[in-house]
Amino acid sequence: MTPVKIGILGLGTVGCGTVNVLARNGTDIAGRAGRGIEVVAAAARDIERERDCDTSGIRLTTDPGVVVDDPEVEVVVELMGGTETARDLVLRAIDAGKHVVTANKAMIALYGNEIFERAHARGVMVAFEAAVAGGIPIIKAIREGLAGNRIEWLAGIINGTGNFILTEMRDKGRDFEDVLAEAQSLGYAEADPTFDVEGIDAAHKLAILASIAFGIPLQFDRVAVEGISGITREDVSFAAELGYRIKHLGIARRMDNGYELRVHPTLIPERRLIANVDGVMNAVLVQGDAVGPTLYYGAGAGAEATASAVVADLVDVVRALTTDPENRVPHLAFQPDALSDHPVLAMEDVHTSFYLRLRTQDRPGVLADITRILGEHGISIEAILQREPDPQRGEATIIMLTHAVREGAMNEAITAVEALPHLLTPITRIRMEAL
Amino acid sequence: MTPVKIGILGLGTVGCGTVNVLARNGTDIAGRAGRGIEVVAAAARDIERERDCDTSGIRLTTDPGVVVDDPEVEVVVELMGGTETARDLVLRAIDAGKHVVTANKAMIALYGNEIFERAHARGVMVAFEAAVAGGIPIIKAIREGLAGNRIEWLAGIINGTGNFILTEMRDKGRDFEDVLAEAQSLGYAEADPTFDVEGIDAAHKLAILASIAFGIPLQFDRVAVEGISGITREDVSFAAELGYRIKHLGIARRMDNGYELRVHPTLIPERRLIANVDGVMNAVLVQGDAVGPTLYYGAGAGAEATASAVVADLVDVVRALTTDPENRVPHLAFQPDALSDHPVLAMEDVHTSFYLRLRTQDRPGVLADITRILGEHGISIEAILQREPDPQRGEATIIMLTHAVREGAMNEAITAVEALPHLLTPITRIRMEAL
Ligand SMILES: NC(=O)c1ccc[n+]([C@@H]2O[C@H](COP(=O)([O-])OP(=O)(O)OC[C@H]3O[C@@H](n4cnc5c(N)ncnc54)[C@H](OP(=O)(O)O)[C@@H]3O)[C@@H](O)[C@H]2O)c1
Ligand SMILES: NC(=O)c1ccc[n+]([C@@H]2O[C@H](COP(=O)([O-])OP(=O)(O)OC[C@H]3O[C@@H](n4cnc5c(N)ncnc54)[C@H](OP(=O)(O)O)[C@@H]3O)[C@@H](O)[C@H]2O)c1
Repeated sequence: MTPVKIGILGLGTVGCGTVNVLARNGTDIAGRAGRGIEVVAAAARDIERERDCDTSGIRLTTDPGVVVDDPEVEVVVELMGGTETARDLVLRAIDAGKHVVTANKAMIALYGNEIFERAHARGVMVAFEAAVAGGIPIIKAIREGLAGNRIEWLAGIINGTGNFILTEMRDKGRDFEDVLAEAQSLGYAEADPTFDVEGIDAAHKLAILASIAFGIPLQFDRVAVEGISGITREDVSFAAELGYRIKHLGIARRMDNGYELRVHPTLIPERRLIANVDGVMNAVLVQGDAVGPTLYYGAGAGAEATASAVVADLVDVVRALTTDPENRVPHLAFQPDALSDHPVLAMEDVHTSFYLRLRTQDRPGVLADITRILGEHGISIEAILQREPDPQRGEATIIMLTHAVREGAMNEAITAVEALPHLLTPITRIRMEAL
Repeated sequence: MTPVKIGILGLGTVGCGTVNVLARNGTDIAGRAGRGIEVVAAAARDIERERDCDTSGIRLTTDPGVVVDDPEVEVVVELMGGTETARDLVLRAIDAGKHVVTANKAMIALYGNEIFERAHARGVMVAFEAAVAGGIPIIKAIREGLAGNRIEWLAGIINGTGNFILTEMRDKGRDFEDVLAEAQSLGYAEADPTFDVEGIDAAHKLAILASIAFGIPLQFDRVAVEGISGITREDVSFAAELGYRIKHLGIARRMDNGYELRVHPTLIPERRLIANVDGVMNAVLVQGDAVGPTLYYGAGAGAEATASAVVADLVDVVRALTTDPENRVPHLAFQPDALSDHPVLAMEDVHTSFYLRLRTQDRPGVLADITRILGEHGISIEAILQREPDPQRGEATIIMLTHAVREGAMNEAITAVEALPHLLTPITRIRMEAL
């Protein structure tokens, strides 16, 4: 059979990775797919520049629309990034009846509902395995591998830069800013690291995971997001002393009254497998009612790891080329008419345990005042760690681990405790999950 | 659309688990698959007995052939176990043009080549996700999720009973026989535990994993197998002292001159994620050339965990019911004409590092004799741990970790060392992998 002809929008990290993997493993890939895959056209902003992949035999253009419209191109692979232009190009490909593969989590999180609706109407596939957790086949695992389950919750380390920073802070006792600067110089973090460290990138991915796990429309704007820039070296080491690691998790949980969708730093017991996922690696823990806990681990980014997911999607698309569209795996795991409209919960209505760090004046009765206020808000304490007070400064540091409480109650309690005259700085609070 | 009608052979642990999951999650499953799945017929040896699942509305028979031949049954789900009868029934279903789902690793490992050839010729699917690592979607991950990769190696904890025994030996310093007896009373191990502890069950699964990873025919008879019954409490604790855990691994590796297929106890550095997979849980680490290392973790057995995989296969089959057979995922990952005929290596030709435990008379020069012989066989030593000799008995215990060496050379060296007059017992040798 003749190879399937594809066009790639973007020849950067992932685009060139994809060209390289298709070239190197072409025989194996055709042996699996039953047909070869040939890159016939590609777009980049600068087509004169030296690239990390061999583009000979590929028609290059600076206009991605030319690739989309190329009559020879059967499948469009969007690896440009950005949201608006990428969305327009993907819709244009769909309208032309072409299948799409993309690694663009921001675009899927923001415009996925529209894109999938259009693709469904037109009978084409939009595949996005590479959009979440890079090379880990997590979309396929949840959407197909766990299709027999009611997914109860999932929790993932889905931003490698954030995990690298937290790992270095713990292993080497370094400060956040210091490690961030290193991550930037190593090329892990973007020059503008906000998407990574403030949790936006993880929130994009969590919105996608929640959709396919629960069968709900994409709701990026309903994800509660907290980054890691407020985590201090002390918190990391206090957590360690208490037997926990701090990880930046994306968590989605099915509750009776709605779904929790949240991204925030989280204390996890150190013996949990996911607590030991270090450096730039990603992992997603998925709890199904039948299968129990399952975990998927691997590289969440990088040229070839991401290309691995792009190529897996291409193989799926190649297989589907002649298939009845109604029998394909639905974009969001459930058939469009079987999606649920159960609400996403406000963060106030989420229940978790908490780690609290308080800096107080070293006076008798301070601890009693604090525990009384917490008790009045229905918050019970599981463990207290009190540092030797610093007599010179007359200061004390108190660490508390609480039992699970509604976040709204915790917020009120914190406001009340912070109003005490002896509190020196705002309270640090980090959520905890047993997982 | 009308539901797809299925027949189940066997209503034991997995059969009833499957009936229960299909009943409980029927709406979600139909929402994913686009069609419901209805159990219309089932076979068991004793159809009067009380079962762990509701069989009302299911036609029961003691003759599995009746289910296979039932004209209403579109898909046959084989959950009886055993190899000969199961094989005959599966072939009969295939000949009748029916798709098959099975959890039977022994049958696939022994007769898979014949079964898949027949299924391919007849244009039906035989799905076997539940045959390896229970609920973990590892077949799908390797066969589809990593389709862009050249798989370099994989290593798995793929027998829960064996892992439970090794975990208990380490955590509680217990003896092998003692823990085995408990595992049997807990119902983890079979009354005849040979398949679990001697590695046969793991070898069945490894043969399957190797086929889909490398695109080679099933070659169960070429798997080198060693069980865990020879592992002592001392070895587990010496390994711990040196920073290692002992795990019973199935390992498949692509080498220039052929494939390594082996199941044996293995020392792994304790910081590796897979070294921390404990109790009855399973995990498979897969190294792809593009994606790097990925790990898949979950329950390897149990009624509903295994049913989770059976149902996922059913959903795939439902989707494929109207698909052109040529576009389905090939049984062994590669198209039948793209399978490789690269050989499986003899164990003598496998290179690993080794842990050696020697009991010797406490005489000067013994260690020098041993290291000289190892050196003559090209074996260099990475670490030595010498226990305080026992002066009463005049005995010493020596632990050595070696660098990687061809197993044939190690076998010769061990024979030569064991011929030394000062050796008191045969040498214990356990292979090591850095992973
Ligand atoms: N990097 C990763 O590890 C990773 C992992 C998972 C997902 N992703 C996602 O994959 C996508 C691509 O990421 P990347 O890291 O490969 O980005 P990148 O290295 O910046 O590459 C982007 C490519 O797109 C081209 N491009 C951008 N805008 C264009 C335009 N308007 N017209 C023509 N060409 C244009 C660029 O051309 P020039 O080369 O000429 O500038 C470049 O080749 C993003 O959605 C990202 O979120 C990346
Ligand atoms: N158990 C697990 O966790 C697990 C995990 C992965 C894979 N598997 C595989 O799944 C398969 C089933 O395992 P299982 O644990 O569910 O076994 P099981 O509990 O022993 O169930 C076997 C069932 O098959 C029926 N059966 C056996 N021979 C029969 C015959 N000749 N005619 C009619 N019915 C017959 C039995 O009937 P009666 O009930 O009347 O005796 C029983 O219902 C095996 O291939 C196993 O390797 C099991």
